[in-house]
Amino acid sequence: MPSPDITAKKSRTRSDYVFRQIYRTRWFDNDMYAHLNNTVYAMLFDSIVNTYLIDRCGMDPFSMNNNDKDKSAAPVSNQVAIMVNSYCDYFASVSFPDVLELGLRVAKLGSSSVTYEVGVFKEGEEAVKVVGGYTHVFVARETMRPTRAGMEEGTRRELEKLVVKGIGNGAAKL
Amino acid sequence: MPSPDITAKKSRTRSDYVFRQIYRTRWFDNDMYAHLNNTVYAMLFDSIVNTYLIDRCGMDPFSMNNNDKDKSAAPVSNQVAIMVNSYCDYFASVSFPDVLELGLRVAKLGSSSVTYEVGVFKEGEEAVKVVGGYTHVFVARETMRPTRAGMEEGTRRELEKLVVKGIGNGAAKL
Amino acid sequence: MPSPDITAKKSRTRSDYVFRQIYRTRWFDNDMYAHLNNTVYAMLFDSIVNTYLIDRCGMDPFSMNNNDKDKSAAPVSNQVAIMVNSYCDYFASVSFPDVLELGLRVAKLGSSSVTYEVGVFKEGEEAVKVVGGYTHVFVARETMRPTRAGMEEGTRRELEKLVVKGIGNGAAKL
Amino acid sequence: MPSPDITAKKSRTRSDYVFRQIYRTRWFDNDMYAHLNNTVYAMLFDSIVNTYLIDRCGMDPFSMNNNDKDKSAAPVSNQVAIMVNSYCDYFASVSFPDVLELGLRVAKLGSSSVTYEVGVFKEGEEAVKVVGGYTHVFVARETMRPTRAGMEEGTRRELEKLVVKGIGNGAAKL
Repeated sequence: MPSPDITAKKSRTRSDYVFRQIYRTRWFDNDMYAHLNNTVYAMLFDSIVNTYLIDRCGMDPFSMNNNDKDKSAAPVSNQVAIMVNSYCDYFASVSFPDVLELGLRVAKLGSSSVTYEVGVFKEGEEAVKVVGGYTHVFVARETMRPTRAGMEEGTRRELEKLVVKGIGNGAAKL
Repeated sequence: MPSPDITAKKSRTRSDYVFRQIYRTRWFDNDMYAHLNNTVYAMLFDSIVNTYLIDRCGMDPFSMNNNDKDKSAAPVSNQVAIMVNSYCDYFASVSFPDVLELGLRVAKLGSSSVTYEVGVFKEGEEAVKVVGGYTHVFVARETMRPTRAGMEEGTRRELEKLVVKGIGNGAAKL
Repeated sequence: MPSPDITAKKSRTRSDYVFRQIYRTRWFDNDMYAHLNNTVYAMLFDSIVNTYLIDRCGMDPFSMNNNDKDKSAAPVSNQVAIMVNSYCDYFASVSFPDVLELGLRVAKLGSSSVTYEVGVFKEGEEAVKVVGGYTHVFVARETMRPTRAGMEEGTRRELEKLVVKGIGNGAAKL
Repeated sequence: MPSPDITAKKSRTRSDYVFRQIYRTRWFDNDMYAHLNNTVYAMLFDSIVNTYLIDRCGMDPFSMNNNDKDKSAAPVSNQVAIMVNSYCDYFASVSFPDVLELGLRVAKLGSSSVTYEVGVFKEGEEAVKVVGGYTHVFVARETMRPTRAGMEEGTRRELEKLVVKGIGNGAAKL
C-alpha cells in the first residue's frame, strides 16, 4: 500500500503549483526504452528552480565566472545555494516529442534551507507524471557555510510566495 | 578571411527556414564558461529534425522498441535514417535561461540522403548564433543499406518542402 | 543534527560495496559552478546498475529494439525493471577531470522490488562524496505489472550477492 | 564514392593518435536506437581536448569561477579557447556498456587557431568508429580577441607534440 505521502503526491494538480514553465523535450532525453530517462526530470527541476532564483531572488551564478550578464532584474545575492539531497517519485512515463508543463512550490522553508517540490505534467493531460525536488542550503559565498541570520531576507520573501497553504506531503491531509 | 560559405551562414535570418520550433534552455546546458556547451546545439538539431521526420514523414523510432505510440498521424516508414556526418559553425554564444528559436531547412536533397541545416536564434534578437546540421542516409530497416529506389516517396515529398530556393551555402550567392 | 541515516551514509567506505566500477568524468558534467551537476550522479547510478543487470541478471534492453547484441552471457529475462523512486545525498563535490569510483550494493530486497545504493568516491581519496540510488520494480514485459511470483529467480540470486550484511541505513548501526 | 578525406579517416588506427584516454560509456548515452547518440562523441571530444589543455597547456577554466583548484601543474594561461566550428564523420556505431578508447591529434596548427581530430575506438576492436573534432581560436581573456602574437608559446609547444607527421586529411596521402 502506498504511503500517505505518495498518495498525496499522486493527486497533485497544476493548481498546486504557484510558478509554472513549459519545456519542450529533446530527442536525446529518450532512453533505450523510448521514454524520458529519469535524470531528465532532475535536469528540468534544476531549470525551473534556477530560473526562479535568478529572476526573482537575485541569485547570480554568472558573476562567478563572467561579467556579461545584465543584473538589473534583482539585487545580487552574496549567498550561494548548495544542494544537499534530492528525491523523486515516478508515476507514469512521457516521451519525446511530448511538451511538458512544470510546476514549482516550496514544500518546506527553514532558516537557511528550502525544500522544493516540482510536479511534471504533460501538455493536454491532467494526471501528474512525476513529483520530485531537492533541498538547498544557502551559504555565504566566502565561507561556504550557513550564516547565523539564515538565508537573505529578499530570497526568503520570494520563496515564501511558493509555499502553498493546505497541501502537504501527505500527513497533513489525513 | 571567412569563406563565402561562412559569410552566407552568418547572414541567415529566421525567414530562411521553413519549419521552426521554440526550445527553452536548461540549467545543465551551460558549461563552466556559463554559456551553452557546443553539444547542446547538436541535441537541439536532433530534436527539430526528428520532430519533422516523426510528424510529417512517418518515421517511427518507437515501433522499434515499444507499441504504445499512436501512429495515426502518418503512414509508418520501412526505412530508418542513419547519420553519416555532422557539422556546426558557432558565431555567438547563448546561455540558460535564454529561450531559443530553431529553424530547419534542407540544404541538399539526394537520392537516398538529405543534408539538413539548422539555424539557432535567441528570442528577441535578430542575428543568428549558430548554424549547423547533419547528413542522413535513408536505409531499409532489414538490410541497413540504401535501396535502389532511394528514400521513400512520402519522405522525399515532405523534405522537398524544406528546400529553400535562392539560399545556398555561399557559392550560390556569388 | 543529521539523522542516523545520513550519518551512516557519510561513513561509507569502498568496502561497503560489493560491485565496483571506475568512470572518467566528462567536461560537460561540470556545471556553471565548476562542479559535477547533481544529475550526473544519477546518470552514473543508472550505468552501474544497468551494467550489473545486463551482465549478471540477463536483463536485455537491447532486444526491445534491435538484434545485434550477443546475449550469450546470461539467459534473457522476460521482465523489465521500472524505476519508481530515487534519492540522493550530497556530501562533497567533485569536478571534471576527476576519475570516480562507484560502488553498488542492495539496500533492500523485496519480492518484486529492489532498492539500490550507490556510493561515489574520488580516485585517491577516502571520504565518500555522494550516496544515492533508486528502487526498481520488476514487471512482466507483456503486462507491465509485477507478477505473483515476484522477480525472476535468477535475478534475485544475483541481487542477493549485493546485499551487505551488517550495514544498513543508519538505524541498524545504533 | 567517398572523398579521399573520408577514405583517409576511415583507415585511422590507434597509433595515428599521440594522446589517448579510455572512457566508459553510460546508460544515458544510448538513444532510442540503442546506440550512442551522436552528441555523445562531441562530449567525449570536449573531454579529451580539455584534459590535454588543462594538464599540459595551463588552460584554467576553474579560475574563472572558483579558487579551489591546484594550479601547480602548469603556469596559468591568460588566453581562453573559443570553439568556432566542429565536424564529425560516423562510420559505425557503439553502445553502452562498451568501453571506448579515444585518440587525439592536431590536424592543423595556425597562428591563433588549432584544429583537433579525435578518433573513437572500441575496446577490443581495430576499426575506427567515429572521427571528428573542432577548431579552437585562442583569444585574450580580457578582449576575447586573438592577439597579434597568436597563441601563447607554452600552449603552442604542447600542441605541436600532437601533430602527427605523414597523416593528413586525405589529400596529403595521394
